Amino acid sequence: MNSTIDQIAQHRSIRQFTSQPVAPELISQAVKAAQQAATSSNVQAYSMLQISDPKVRHKLAELCGNQEKVAECGAFFVMCADSRRHRLLAKRANKKYQSHLEGFLVGVIDACLFAQNLAIAFESMDLGICYIGGLRNDLIQAQKLLNFPIGVYPLFGFCVGYPDEDPFKRPRLPLQAVLFKDQYPSDQEMLDLIDEYDQEMSTYYIQRGASGRTWSPQIAGFHEELRRGDLADFYKEQGANLT
Amino acid sequence: MNSTIDQIAQHRSIRQFTSQPVAPELISQAVKAAQQAATSSNVQAYSMLQISDPKVRHKLAELCGNQEKVAECGAFFVMCADSRRHRLLAKRANKKYQSHLEGFLVGVIDACLFAQNLAIAFESMDLGICYIGGLRNDLIQAQKLLNFPIGVYPLFGFCVGYPDEDPFKRPRLPLQAVLFKDQYPSDQEMLDLIDEYDQEMSTYYIQRGASGRTWSPQIAGFHEELRRGDLADFYKEQGANLT
Repeated sequence: MNSTIDQIAQHRSIRQFTSQPVAPELISQAVKAAQQAATSSNVQAYSMLQISDPKVRHKLAELCGNQEKVAECGAFFVMCADSRRHRLLAKRANKKYQSHLEGFLVGVIDACLFAQNLAIAFESMDLGICYIGGLRNDLIQAQKLLNFPIGVYPLFGFCVGYPDEDPFKRPRLPLQAVLFKDQYPSDQEMLDLIDEYDQEMSTYYIQRGASGRTWSPQIAGFHEELRRGDLADFYKEQGANLT
Repeated sequence: MNSTIDQIAQHRSIRQFTSQPVAPELISQAVKAAQQAATSSNVQAYSMLQISDPKVRHKLAELCGNQEKVAECGAFFVMCADSRRHRLLAKRANKKYQSHLEGFLVGVIDACLFAQNLAIAFESMDLGICYIGGLRNDLIQAQKLLNFPIGVYPLFGFCVGYPDEDPFKRPRLPLQAVLFKDQYPSDQEMLDLIDEYDQEMSTYYIQRGASGRTWSPQIAGFHEELRRGDLADFYKEQGANLT
């Protein structure tokens, strides 16, 4: 085990931060390093918007489902897949820009590889991070606040700051439920692995004072209702083509 | 600069590998650490398939656009967004599983955060990696070879191995073209930043003996034609709903 792997293995999302801001030099340093992430054909189809206005941060915290950390963390960003630069260059060269699922997907993948690099970079500076999927709760309102140009697809928020808590590390699925060799396991083999994980999660929840909880029942009901049903329409308005 | 940031900042994709295989213990160690990546509501909506059969590896190398490294690297994986576990649990609990863009997107994001953690973990072991977007060239044929179950959405290949080359590090866009404070720059400001990057890329290409090349012209024409137009249909066949 080297120190980098050790750090990756110790990740916990941080949800309570001190009010200490994150110095701009640390942000620049982390972003520059993170930009070295692999990117499909070097298209670099992502961008990030730092939100520093406290009023906007408070409004975003509400939109994300009353997540106070969005307002309170040392630095808050919105991570975006971004085809805008490609569109501007096509326009300047009088070329057609074709929007399609491949282009959207490349942007999402590029943005996430960059974001996870950034997460690791910040954590290596003893900062804590939290991804905020709740940003997708109401992208129409977020757009009114933040004016994303055409071709920019906001994906999630990203909190960074100095931790004001020391949470438990949450166990993950057994390796065998995630990494397969040459073929996928049968349904029953998969369910057996999940049962094993449920036992571990059950112990974890007991330690956290939430006896009786485990993984399967949460997941079984998680997709019963449509969630964030306006997402596709929002991205289409921003110029995406998902077909 | 700490050693982790230094490592992130030094990334180059490796495209030529020695024939030395990657020991299974190293793979397990890296995957276990990478699993600690943040995951939306702990759904862990990803999986990876290791391909060890040389015949299948050769066939995949062809499908990915004759990328020999797919056959030759020390270990090759297919990274997938994966809703299968969620579907199995919903079925076991007699609950409905609703497929929607949010579910697909969560899977893609989860898979990418995991994959980038894995990239960093392997690189910290002095292994090299390369993402293979070319896997999306022909997912219908890949599916015939690899039999992904319903709910599994292959996204890209992932080569790992011992480097047999020492390539240049490719420069990235200026920080100011990627990280914005409170608002997006104007079109003209963005194009000015790109012109600055073109100068740097031009120097990079001269160093590599490809004088006259730079970034903008490649990007301007990159989206003129539809690419991988059957992607949406393929994912729908696998159970995705992109609306």
